[in-house]
Amino acid sequence: MYEKKDQVKKLGEFGLIDLIKNNLLIDPRNVVAGIGDDAAVLRQPTGELLLATTDMMIEEVHFKIDRNNGSKVGFRVMAANVSDIAAMGGKPTHALVSIGVRWDTPVSYIEDIYKGMRKCSIKYGINIVGGDTVFSPNNLVINIMLLGTVKKDKYLLRSKACPGDSIIVTGYLGDSSAGIDMLLNKYEIPKDFHSYLVDRHYYPTPRIWEVAAAQGAGKVTAANDISDGLGSELHEIASASGVGALIWFDSLPISEEVREVSKVSGKDTDWYALFGGEDFEVVMTVKPEDTEAVVSAVEKETGTKASVVGVIKEKSQGVQIIKEGLTIDLDKKGYDHFSKQI
Amino acid sequence: MYEKKDQVKKLGEFGLIDLIKNNLLIDPRNVVAGIGDDAAVLRQPTGELLLATTDMMIEEVHFKIDRNNGSKVGFRVMAANVSDIAAMGGKPTHALVSIGVRWDTPVSYIEDIYKGMRKCSIKYGINIVGGDTVFSPNNLVINIMLLGTVKKDKYLLRSKACPGDSIIVTGYLGDSSAGIDMLLNKYEIPKDFHSYLVDRHYYPTPRIWEVAAAQGAGKVTAANDISDGLGSELHEIASASGVGALIWFDSLPISEEVREVSKVSGKDTDWYALFGGEDFEVVMTVKPEDTEAVVSAVEKETGTKASVVGVIKEKSQGVQIIKEGLTIDLDKKGYDHFSKQI
Repeated sequence: MYEKKDQVKKLGEFGLIDLIKNNLLIDPRNVVAGIGDDAAVLRQPTGELLLATTDMMIEEVHFKIDRNNGSKVGFRVMAANVSDIAAMGGKPTHALVSIGVRWDTPVSYIEDIYKGMRKCSIKYGINIVGGDTVFSPNNLVINIMLLGTVKKDKYLLRSKACPGDSIIVTGYLGDSSAGIDMLLNKYEIPKDFHSYLVDRHYYPTPRIWEVAAAQGAGKVTAANDISDGLGSELHEIASASGVGALIWFDSLPISEEVREVSKVSGKDTDWYALFGGEDFEVVMTVKPEDTEAVVSAVEKETGTKASVVGVIKEKSQGVQIIKEGLTIDLDKKGYDHFSKQI
Repeated sequence: MYEKKDQVKKLGEFGLIDLIKNNLLIDPRNVVAGIGDDAAVLRQPTGELLLATTDMMIEEVHFKIDRNNGSKVGFRVMAANVSDIAAMGGKPTHALVSIGVRWDTPVSYIEDIYKGMRKCSIKYGINIVGGDTVFSPNNLVINIMLLGTVKKDKYLLRSKACPGDSIIVTGYLGDSSAGIDMLLNKYEIPKDFHSYLVDRHYYPTPRIWEVAAAQGAGKVTAANDISDGLGSELHEIASASGVGALIWFDSLPISEEVREVSKVSGKDTDWYALFGGEDFEVVMTVKPEDTEAVVSAVEKETGTKASVVGVIKEKSQGVQIIKEGLTIDLDKKGYDHFSKQI
């Protein structure tokens, strides 16, 4: 696939660091010292709280190495972290990137990974201020730790949803999982539908500005990013807040493209929208009186669709969905990394 | 080695998280929200800068799985991060732990890793406030990201050493590499020497309090933790500061135990002390007039030996060592993870 001369082992650790350490500061204002010391030295804005999250991706589990996908993999792992910061009501600031590389990894693949991370970093103003590069005998490993900042009274927890709150989701649900299903099973669907879904899978758009718009327009009580499917995320909010939830199936934002894949694959649209996961959309619970203002602000300020998909209920009602006139229990069925892989 | 029922795959991801998420906050004062949300929410003390560092360790490269070493591996990866914070003049505060586990990893081994991390966390007052658990098909992977805090005027960079500054190191050099050399090659040396060196390898003591004592007693201009050997670290300081350095071989703090291993292995004590690496001691450059006060403060306040091993020179002199009356260039020869492994 690649020529031998293009392998990491020719560079050694320090050569690799030299290759990747440039142009990693996008917004250097609060960086006192970045790469090149034992730790990064950072200034934290007064009156703001610090957010910290991390995601690890491993070759064969989360991605496969392919000549054309280094940049996508890099973008995606950064975006997954940004999505976590979005769901907390924050803005991302600084990242540390650890990478474990096989000795035969093509240098250009590593460069592509960093290009993808930078593509995402530029979009959200993130500095890469440090990291670790090590040898990995079998699988390429990428771990990103992302810091963010949030105003003292604006951070969003899973545990603050109240009965009566509206449940709002950003964007469309199921695009990412329909995209991957289509790629894996080579379903034939119209070309523009195909590229839309593949893009939604490879380049998810963390909802930083959408959550900010929502918080500017009304009282958001809780939030979660939709990485494991709406079903799983709602159960997390319900469990943390001690509440129940009711979802209206007909209100779920399902794209025309997902409906098309659903026809060809024979899988229900529910499967993609509720359990598919990895959309990196955000589910928010919002005070009922602010519902309209929040939806309108998100759509006007960001151009992203916002949909009211249900309502928070008392704990005793559990997590349910109304579909075709029937109210049924909505299973968790979130994406469990181990059970899916094993 | 282990029974099958004791494997991670029986637990699944969420079961594993449940198992490890308890008792991870050692000093919860500045933790607004820890594990259980998309990101940790942390308070940063006013007037202090934030430090952030990360280290990745991969099975087969940095450790091998053995019934008795889970706790040691956990301690060591946390200690490696603490050492980076020490070298910046800071105190560690919060950690995020990512772990990639094989489906057949014994649950008790994962528990032991966390026990080891907690052992180190308790010692240095560190909260584990988040992380990621994923499946890894071949090798166990641990990534720790550690945050710390440092007073605005007290952070230490590699780049501020000046000609004339004294070079001071904490503790003894080469103990860790002599320990691992002894384990790998099964050298026979007296039992108490053996256990001292093995302990120095498995349970290194990051020099948080020693650097604080030094900074309290005089002007420390630059610092580096000794993870890749003194030779390599001095080259880093010299290169970053635009200076040279002269080391007096006879002043290097080499333990009786390393001298004993050296006799049996036939390797010079230099090899262990200058190039062996992973001691997690700290090398500091200190204003000449403060040298005595710094050495005395470190030894009195912490009980750790502090040794003046050389002096910073002009850049044109390079990095040199005086040994047996001869002044010779001190090679970098640091531990390069790739070239060593490949």
